[in-house]
Amino acid sequence: MTTGALTGPLDGPIGVFDSGVGGLTVLRALRAQLPDENFIYLGDTARLPYGTKSAQSVVRYSLQCAAALLERGIRCLVVACNTASASSIDALRLQHPGLPVIGVVEPGAEAAVAASVSQHIAVIATEGTIAGGAYEAAIHRLNAAARVTSRACSLFVALAEEGWTSGPIAEAAARRYLEPVFSMADPPDTLVLGCTHFPALHPAIAAVLQPQVRVVDSAATTAAAVARRLDRSERPSGARGSVILLATDGAARFARVGSAFLGEALRADTVEIVDL
Amino acid sequence: MTTGALTGPLDGPIGVFDSGVGGLTVLRALRAQLPDENFIYLGDTARLPYGTKSAQSVVRYSLQCAAALLERGIRCLVVACNTASASSIDALRLQHPGLPVIGVVEPGAEAAVAASVSQHIAVIATEGTIAGGAYEAAIHRLNAAARVTSRACSLFVALAEEGWTSGPIAEAAARRYLEPVFSMADPPDTLVLGCTHFPALHPAIAAVLQPQVRVVDSAATTAAAVARRLDRSERPSGARGSVILLATDGAARFARVGSAFLGEALRADTVEIVDL
Repeated sequence: MTTGALTGPLDGPIGVFDSGVGGLTVLRALRAQLPDENFIYLGDTARLPYGTKSAQSVVRYSLQCAAALLERGIRCLVVACNTASASSIDALRLQHPGLPVIGVVEPGAEAAVAASVSQHIAVIATEGTIAGGAYEAAIHRLNAAARVTSRACSLFVALAEEGWTSGPIAEAAARRYLEPVFSMADPPDTLVLGCTHFPALHPAIAAVLQPQVRVVDSAATTAAAVARRLDRSERPSGARGSVILLATDGAARFARVGSAFLGEALRADTVEIVDL
Repeated sequence: MTTGALTGPLDGPIGVFDSGVGGLTVLRALRAQLPDENFIYLGDTARLPYGTKSAQSVVRYSLQCAAALLERGIRCLVVACNTASASSIDALRLQHPGLPVIGVVEPGAEAAVAASVSQHIAVIATEGTIAGGAYEAAIHRLNAAARVTSRACSLFVALAEEGWTSGPIAEAAARRYLEPVFSMADPPDTLVLGCTHFPALHPAIAAVLQPQVRVVDSAATTAAAVARRLDRSERPSGARGSVILLATDGAARFARVGSAFLGEALRADTVEIVDL
């Protein structure tokens, strides 16, 4: 992996990894935009969540996930986990210079800067993503004058995994996290959902926001970024691509919780358990 | 570790491990009951939570935690994590026959059977603990005629870690989890808090229960079980024992979140990071 050439065959699958099942929202968007591509998705469920772990540990886990996917011949790597994107993109690109590596942070930041009129942008994410400041840095690379207000919303992950994505508890949590951000004198006009779990809570989040606030989730924007980066000239078109699902622990839970994120029913016996 | 003799010196420290900081509630109870003992606490923060992982993974992690503590000369092992107690006690005792190994499930089950008049006992815990059925089995070993109603309350862990331990969100979550259990025709009269995080939510839990329901948390009952198992004849008395804190990731977060569970302020530079 030390040359500048593309890694693997031109029609190799697209590798996607996440700390667990949340990244299936990104896989869903990728399949919608690139239906004829083959995908290998790896959820590092044995070590989830990444969002409360140190950056050093997350970098190590990310390099292990990438290595496991490269062994299976991927030609492009999508880091579907915001925390891993925030901490590990540079290390992944350094270790695999020939491999296109696309994270969710940069496309999300681009979409937010494009959507915001006031250029005051709110970012909500896990503790790890917020502490690392990656969204703030990515937004400032696009517009140094932008203002970014960040807030860690750890409970949203548990709410999404429990399936409590709407109703009074989800709305009360959304209000508690977001009211201090949006009751400022000069509030943000755009909100970035900087965690793959958060789009599941969109209804509860929207219920506590003023209707003019734009909500950006990085799944669709990341899928568009992947499509732009790929050499798709040699792809056969028309055929529906395949999906291989890998996890590091708990096939039954992966299938049960993951179905909601992928938007289609998953069976536990289609999830292969791997050791990293 | 293949003899029946006690492992390590008679005055060796007591080892305590947990998936993270929740077990500090058990350490707190142990220090209150055994103030002159020395303790080594290991929080496996790199791989928390155990509660959503498979039993097979949790057994592997537990054996690694025990090995790390044995290297430091412990004479007794306390498994402060309910999920690890539920899945790994047998494997730990098999691998270390000379070492007293005390989990939190058996003392909690004993306290519940002793407290309940109707012998209809409710158990709330993580997904992993409930799925394994360890509390149910431990209660039935004590009273085969007891009735056990179990419920996984995954969100309580996130609420405790976020510090949202009272108020409307915690109470609404408690109501959503507990109302189906306690609105039965013949409801339980005793509730076991089968996760070390849950005692932090005691006020919110109590607010949604009828006042006659007895609430059992295993921290104090486990500390009493440890005191009964130890040979304390050679211990010097009077002196305040020491505490060594180990974690597998994130000293700053361990100290910040852990302070509330231990009931005293922790500094990040007193937490030693170890690799398992």
